[in-house]
Amino acid sequence: MKKWNTVAIIGVGLIGGSIGLALRRRGLTKNVVGIGRRASSLRKAKRNNAVTSTTTNVARGVADADLVVVCTPVQGIAEHVQTAAAACPAGALITDVGSTKGEIVSSLQGRLPPEVRYVGSHPLAGSEKTGCDYADHQLLVDRVVIITPSRGTAPSATKGIRQFWNALGARVLEMTPQEHDRALASTSHLPHLVASILAASTPEEFLRWAASGWLDTTRVAGGDAELWKQIILSNRRHVLKSLSKFEKVLASFRNALDTEDSAKIAKILEDGKRNRDAVGD
Amino acid sequence: MKKWNTVAIIGVGLIGGSIGLALRRRGLTKNVVGIGRRASSLRKAKRNNAVTSTTTNVARGVADADLVVVCTPVQGIAEHVQTAAAACPAGALITDVGSTKGEIVSSLQGRLPPEVRYVGSHPLAGSEKTGCDYADHQLLVDRVVIITPSRGTAPSATKGIRQFWNALGARVLEMTPQEHDRALASTSHLPHLVASILAASTPEEFLRWAASGWLDTTRVAGGDAELWKQIILSNRRHVLKSLSKFEKVLASFRNALDTEDSAKIAKILEDGKRNRDAVGD
Repeated sequence: MKKWNTVAIIGVGLIGGSIGLALRRRGLTKNVVGIGRRASSLRKAKRNNAVTSTTTNVARGVADADLVVVCTPVQGIAEHVQTAAAACPAGALITDVGSTKGEIVSSLQGRLPPEVRYVGSHPLAGSEKTGCDYADHQLLVDRVVIITPSRGTAPSATKGIRQFWNALGARVLEMTPQEHDRALASTSHLPHLVASILAASTPEEFLRWAASGWLDTTRVAGGDAELWKQIILSNRRHVLKSLSKFEKVLASFRNALDTEDSAKIAKILEDGKRNRDAVGD
Repeated sequence: MKKWNTVAIIGVGLIGGSIGLALRRRGLTKNVVGIGRRASSLRKAKRNNAVTSTTTNVARGVADADLVVVCTPVQGIAEHVQTAAAACPAGALITDVGSTKGEIVSSLQGRLPPEVRYVGSHPLAGSEKTGCDYADHQLLVDRVVIITPSRGTAPSATKGIRQFWNALGARVLEMTPQEHDRALASTSHLPHLVASILAASTPEEFLRWAASGWLDTTRVAGGDAELWKQIILSNRRHVLKSLSKFEKVLASFRNALDTEDSAKIAKILEDGKRNRDAVGD
């Protein structure tokens, strides 16, 4: 049974493409409209069967949509949600997949027409890969999607977005936009910038000796620099707080190494191991 | 054809056990003597067929060895090499698998009997796992092993140790102990401590939100804290230099984030991506 007649996806990269593929494979919708700026990306999405039709015009693309999913880089999300909200049918549901939520959700507060309903989402299913060529109809299976309704959100909208992600095989958890941004600053944005700084600070002459430790620790630094710059800037306040925590432990380690304080070094390594072991593989 | 009659392995954990398994599977030696302090570890190595006999007595264990491989934690390696050198037959070859080389090699300089030959080794085949239960006869296949002959090393000794690692399927590269320690400080020891500091600084309440980015970036922090403390302390001088490079880029990033210097943030993320992409998966 189709759950939706038409789903519009704005931005058909890795995530947008994967959502399209999953919707089609699972027979959840009749039409998937792929919306993007570049004709080449849209052709690719069509060829990969991630969408059933394409357009570069957002207003036209969402005109018949009962669900709109905005999958563009963080910086453009709020504007795309507004454009879609102005053009989609009354009663349509809108969500996005941005890695930060506070700035997006608050900038939309009170700025959407009453007849459309928006709920922010963040699927924890990233990758250092980008583009529809890496799209995977199973990308969201068993992954966590955090949704961030705010005080004014209609319960029916929250329920609809929850059902959408569940239908793609994901587990849905609710948080406020602020709780989300605070947690993700620690578990995603800080690790990314630490990985980037580590990779950037490795002298080129030594890169040939990089083995599994360096490769794992720096893996996410291979992600798109522009996308991550936007994510970090749009969650600046919380990232700065997480960074301060990191700098404090780093300063303590540096001091221990300067003074050959073996017990202090062991303590920090053990603290790290305890947290790492608590999470598992 | 057997290449060696008896190989003695001091320390039958992940690496020592894997070497024993590989020697036996490849039919390279008649006897593999497992030497260790704990009877339980030795029993496990015997049960896993990593060794053909076991003893807790180093002198007795190496008495008939034509090759001795010291696979204990870094702190004890130099002493084990000396004990083995005093007890093994004239003409025997000794190597170790320590993650640092400068301190070990220099502390042995001029302190070994002339009739035994020692060459330091470091297989780049670590894991956050420890213990013979994780031993794998293919652990060294296609991996790089760095060997670190010094000025006084007989060319025949270097050749013998090179042949040993090649026989296990590894690629061998030669460096001086100092070159090794300088490179590995950047590509292994610094990533380890950065991963540990990142994991240690993540608030416990947020660990449930850890997804692939955090998991990759902190993976090595799950390694044995005591082993890594020894590695970092025994390569302290070079680790401090690598750490200074990291701190410099970190300070620059922190400043860019404080001042919302978007171009500077992009630059650091791009520098990191360039180095990461240069190494590959």
